Amino acid sequence: MAEPFRVGLLGHGTVGSAFDKLLGERADAIAAATGRLPEVCGVLTRSQGSFDEVVGRANAIVELMGGLEPAREYVLRALRERKPVVTANKQLLSQHGDELFAAARQSGVQLRYEAAVAGVVPVIRVMRESFAGAHIEKVEGIVNGTTNYVLSEMARTGASYQEALGRAQALGYAEADPTEDVTGKDAAAKMAILARLAFHTSVHLDQVHYEGIEEITPDDIDYAREFGLVLKLLGLAERRDGGISARVFPCFLYQGHPLASVVGPFNAVTVESPAITEITLSGPGAGGVETASAVLGDVVSVMTSSGMNLEPFEELRLVPGEECESSFYLHLEVEDRPGVLASIAKILGDSEVSVKSVVQKGLADKARLVMVMHPVVEGRFIQAIESISKLEALRAPPRSIRVIEEEFVT
Amino acid sequence: MAEPFRVGLLGHGTVGSAFDKLLGERADAIAAATGRLPEVCGVLTRSQGSFDEVVGRANAIVELMGGLEPAREYVLRALRERKPVVTANKQLLSQHGDELFAAARQSGVQLRYEAAVAGVVPVIRVMRESFAGAHIEKVEGIVNGTTNYVLSEMARTGASYQEALGRAQALGYAEADPTEDVTGKDAAAKMAILARLAFHTSVHLDQVHYEGIEEITPDDIDYAREFGLVLKLLGLAERRDGGISARVFPCFLYQGHPLASVVGPFNAVTVESPAITEITLSGPGAGGVETASAVLGDVVSVMTSSGMNLEPFEELRLVPGEECESSFYLHLEVEDRPGVLASIAKILGDSEVSVKSVVQKGLADKARLVMVMHPVVEGRFIQAIESISKLEALRAPPRSIRVIEEEFVT
Repeated sequence: MAEPFRVGLLGHGTVGSAFDKLLGERADAIAAATGRLPEVCGVLTRSQGSFDEVVGRANAIVELMGGLEPAREYVLRALRERKPVVTANKQLLSQHGDELFAAARQSGVQLRYEAAVAGVVPVIRVMRESFAGAHIEKVEGIVNGTTNYVLSEMARTGASYQEALGRAQALGYAEADPTEDVTGKDAAAKMAILARLAFHTSVHLDQVHYEGIEEITPDDIDYAREFGLVLKLLGLAERRDGGISARVFPCFLYQGHPLASVVGPFNAVTVESPAITEITLSGPGAGGVETASAVLGDVVSVMTSSGMNLEPFEELRLVPGEECESSFYLHLEVEDRPGVLASIAKILGDSEVSVKSVVQKGLADKARLVMVMHPVVEGRFIQAIESISKLEALRAPPRSIRVIEEEFVT
Repeated sequence: MAEPFRVGLLGHGTVGSAFDKLLGERADAIAAATGRLPEVCGVLTRSQGSFDEVVGRANAIVELMGGLEPAREYVLRALRERKPVVTANKQLLSQHGDELFAAARQSGVQLRYEAAVAGVVPVIRVMRESFAGAHIEKVEGIVNGTTNYVLSEMARTGASYQEALGRAQALGYAEADPTEDVTGKDAAAKMAILARLAFHTSVHLDQVHYEGIEEITPDDIDYAREFGLVLKLLGLAERRDGGISARVFPCFLYQGHPLASVVGPFNAVTVESPAITEITLSGPGAGGVETASAVLGDVVSVMTSSGMNLEPFEELRLVPGEECESSFYLHLEVEDRPGVLASIAKILGDSEVSVKSVVQKGLADKARLVMVMHPVVEGRFIQAIESISKLEALRAPPRSIRVIEEEFVT
């Protein structure tokens, strides 16, 4: 008879009950592999149970309540009582990471959180363990399944943003209030967590610049297709000028980009390091069962591993977005008369923005210029756009979207 | 000052010396994360060093000699002396896995082997740990970078197999003697290792059916493109009729398949489980530095984890290839006269092989039939092909290639 491994469960909603069920189903197989039989020794919800009783009995705590409080207080108390914690709570980690990881370090116990980022795609484990011997340069990913479904659906069917969002809600891929997803805030929380792990530095949600997909139109997707581009909401964390930047924005990827082929409610993350070149991990975004499975993987790791010290050990500067270099797509509705292109080109040239390709579409009152730029410091591009928007020949505000250009080995 | 963690290194060729160098570079960062400072405490090569001295000093052994002997003997002795072992040796594990894993289990020490499969793509770790709470149904992958480069190059440029192989050799993606790669044997060894891990059963290289890419022609790739297919050398391990099958063969994937977009000398593996749907991991195939990095990740895991019992605990039947169900593409050079299609269709119908699509190409002495079949038990299809090859109207032997059909969530 295997010795029990007692798990105290905080929260019993969709994910909590899926975890409870999965643990029961897989307990024997885990006992065969680890020598200990995992079991839920107590459940605490917002309305019932005693934290002290649950934590007193437990070998480890699984936090699936979500939200900041009382989750923060419980996780902190559990860590201080030297109980390893597994959580799926991205809000908590992206806003109170410094405090929580410091507590885990002081107590010498593990704080694991695979399920907080990218559903079942095991990017946390791979970065912590497989890349333990590597220096990470960049992490980029599609870390929000809702927006990826919406953008895929717009591209596949020509639907408007509102129509595609409605379908996502009907299929359960988007919540009734989709604000956190469509504004990019959910993705920003995940990028804060990934950036902290990649660069061993403190990163708070407030330090991640994010833009959402609410303003994307079918036109953007159509025109971009002509350039061989695909529109994605990208999270990007990278080393830059001795510091790091962490951002989320809609952008166009070339077809050969490893994230370009990720469609529907899927997540994918690419990690780049000189020693490893790049690794891409992809899979479905989080549903209840998938999240529960990621949590269970962490529980098994707590049972078999002493873990590593993940306390930030370097303070790196967060480089603001306007200092970063990006390529842009620019969409201008213009009057169809001589000299318009010349005035626009002059403004771009004066701001040292270099044009890679330009297409004129339509005639008369439907004339549009669609341009793709070479990489430029964002502040300079924003300045150029401000000047262009003042031109009389413009019939609507300029629309710009970032473009990720990369060459891959073929 | 962190306590040392002493690594005994067996082999000092390309990978061995890359590992030695990488360990030196990353030692301080690993010490900061784990509390122990890793160092190479001794090196044994075929020509110098004493195994007993190296193993006596070591906390763990890293085996990078390659080949079966003396690697097998050294790994076995190290495990029996209760030293954890990290190896990149796929030949060894696919042919002596039973003996080695039994020794690791008896001694209660870890035997880790991330670098043996799929270069730096951390599929072993993800299957062992992230999927520890899941029941794996299927593992499929592109696990040989050489053949994936050759097939990608044929598709990209229209080159013949021999031309593309020559380019692979010039670029260092293929060895002077490419036999192990192009026959599928290298991929088969990796699939034996993955199947053992996925299904917790004994799988030997000899039990993996494999076919190579030597017979692939540019014609196959061109015609398949018309059907929206991509040609890959696929490794496939799956549960089937209460047993399992493990096979390697060239096959056509639909564009939407997660492995279809993997081009060049890259590896990728998809793991399927009901609890997780599917996860795909991709990255560059093994070079010296990448392999060294995967080995170092395993060393860090040995430093921080007690590992899990990976002894096979179920004996599952290996289902032979002819009992498996597959879809096929069939290419026939036929005389261009009435009744030919009818005779072929009759033979297929009599063998219960159902045609999904058919295209006639060319005229007179260049007439060809290109067909794609619905899934069929392979034995029945082989029987039908034998009958078709006896038809007088055939101007060349029939050519068939498997097709992987799958629907994905979009």
